[in-house]
Amino acid sequence: MTAPLDLLVIGNAIVDVIARTDDAFLAAQKVAKGAMQLIDEPRAEELFQAMGPATIVSGGSGANTAVGAALLGARTGFIGKVRDDEPGHLFAHDLKATGVGFTVPPATDGPATARCFVLVTPDGERTMNTYLGACQGLSPADVDEAVVASARVVYLEGYLWDPPAAKEAFRKAVKIAHAAGNAVALTLSDAFCVGRYRDEFLGLIRDGSIDILFANIGELMSLYETEDADAAVQALRDERDARGRHLLGLVTRSAEGSLVVKGGEIRAVEASLVHEVVDTTGAGDLFAAGFLAGQARGLDYVTCAKLGSLAAAEVIQHIGARPQSDLVALAKKRGLL
Amino acid sequence: MTAPLDLLVIGNAIVDVIARTDDAFLAAQKVAKGAMQLIDEPRAEELFQAMGPATIVSGGSGANTAVGAALLGARTGFIGKVRDDEPGHLFAHDLKATGVGFTVPPATDGPATARCFVLVTPDGERTMNTYLGACQGLSPADVDEAVVASARVVYLEGYLWDPPAAKEAFRKAVKIAHAAGNAVALTLSDAFCVGRYRDEFLGLIRDGSIDILFANIGELMSLYETEDADAAVQALRDERDARGRHLLGLVTRSAEGSLVVKGGEIRAVEASLVHEVVDTTGAGDLFAAGFLAGQARGLDYVTCAKLGSLAAAEVIQHIGARPQSDLVALAKKRGLL
Repeated sequence: MTAPLDLLVIGNAIVDVIARTDDAFLAAQKVAKGAMQLIDEPRAEELFQAMGPATIVSGGSGANTAVGAALLGARTGFIGKVRDDEPGHLFAHDLKATGVGFTVPPATDGPATARCFVLVTPDGERTMNTYLGACQGLSPADVDEAVVASARVVYLEGYLWDPPAAKEAFRKAVKIAHAAGNAVALTLSDAFCVGRYRDEFLGLIRDGSIDILFANIGELMSLYETEDADAAVQALRDERDARGRHLLGLVTRSAEGSLVVKGGEIRAVEASLVHEVVDTTGAGDLFAAGFLAGQARGLDYVTCAKLGSLAAAEVIQHIGARPQSDLVALAKKRGLL
Repeated sequence: MTAPLDLLVIGNAIVDVIARTDDAFLAAQKVAKGAMQLIDEPRAEELFQAMGPATIVSGGSGANTAVGAALLGARTGFIGKVRDDEPGHLFAHDLKATGVGFTVPPATDGPATARCFVLVTPDGERTMNTYLGACQGLSPADVDEAVVASARVVYLEGYLWDPPAAKEAFRKAVKIAHAAGNAVALTLSDAFCVGRYRDEFLGLIRDGSIDILFANIGELMSLYETEDADAAVQALRDERDARGRHLLGLVTRSAEGSLVVKGGEIRAVEASLVHEVVDTTGAGDLFAAGFLAGQARGLDYVTCAKLGSLAAAEVIQHIGARPQSDLVALAKKRGLL
């Protein structure tokens, strides 16, 4: 018998290699500021040699969400693929150390554990360059039916569309979750990722695969191919799946706070106070973590969104996308828990 | 022809694996709070499994000093030993990325690159557990005579007394430096390290091997086996080598600032303002960096000590012992450069 989970995350298992830099370096390296781009192994080494001194912290969008939710008290599991190398060892350790269940065996051959080279500019913006490595080995065989069926929410990264075999794992998880009567959440991950898989993401939304959608405003505008933020939000509000159901949409807008889009209505929730933006990596991931942990505690949507904002605010005030403070204590201080 | 250096550092080449923890964990793991203790490989793995989520940053006491001095404009080189593994690759990259010359070839077999498991408690104190690994392979052959002779100051870690072959490298460097008319600096590193090698360190001071001594007050009290801080400082003030020369002593006293001990006189210098102590790892290393970089710029001792305090203050306000801010800009803002 599998212990029930509040949240099961399926995502790319990545270790972040973070360096401070400036806009001139981004221009010289021809990388699109603020985006996530995929790179191959030779490019990864070239970029590492060119970049400044590094801080290494476990990352991966969905894994960051899993850790944040677990730190806020949600019973959480993670499915993703590492290699049995040093970064893979670190990644698994860090999940275990934060109470996230992670039992997928590491690959014993093939490419190395994935690395994301994160370049942080003085404005706190992060620009990501990802070598997917062992993530390409994630397959439906890694999706344990009993574990998926036990989770009240299964949360999936849009980034899973990048490694070819992972989307099959994604589809398998959706089928099991819905058969068990559980909810499926998707994050759109990145505006360029939406550009690569727009039709497929819209298909998932419209065929009823997705119950909860997380997106920042740029991703949503990319999804609906509009330059008009309001139009994008309205398009999301008006989405109905084949059975006429609205999904629950959570739209983050950086310092402008978030929107809860539900049942044809839109509710704005203000952002948490931030003293200094140091590194925005993980802001969206931790918003989702706070929101989903709030749901697991049975809180209302607005309080869930506030919890999301709180967790996002914590993570952007230091280097790295994993929380460094006691999120429960912070939430209690703000009266959210 | 070797380009002249302001500073050549010889030290243990170590990558830090840092986790936040609490006093109860230190007690359960039976580690002495605030100290550096040596561990073997099985213990390293046991401690890693038990500790919380990790941040990985290059470290090593002397290497931290080298990086800080280079960031403050000193032409700096480093001698130390890594293995040709992933942490070794990171360590070498981070020196290169900050402009520190590092040409010692990595070991191609034998133990892995050294790791220091740094446990940081909520009071900001760090407790270090070091697996020396490849550092044990540092030998006199790694000390390039031309490079040592070219350096105005050769800076040596007391920690070099731990790996048996390294002290021979240390002695060789002292001989070359003095033959070339250059100065030799030593840091006492750690009160327990002083306990292990007290007689040898006093011997080096008294036989004229050391021209500049860095110590925190605890290390100095250990050196002179006294519980009385003033007595320890006076003992340092009264030291003369075989030729009757006083050495230059720099004594750090945390928030109480530092003391410049020279020619039988003691001058107190106040500490820099610190908003929040996050992680004290590297405080002494960066004090030495600022002081030595000031000397390379021809500044007076008091200004050098203020530059040291400034660099130390920067590094204790974030996780990791390598500076994250522009030290030159900070120093200019304070009118020190």
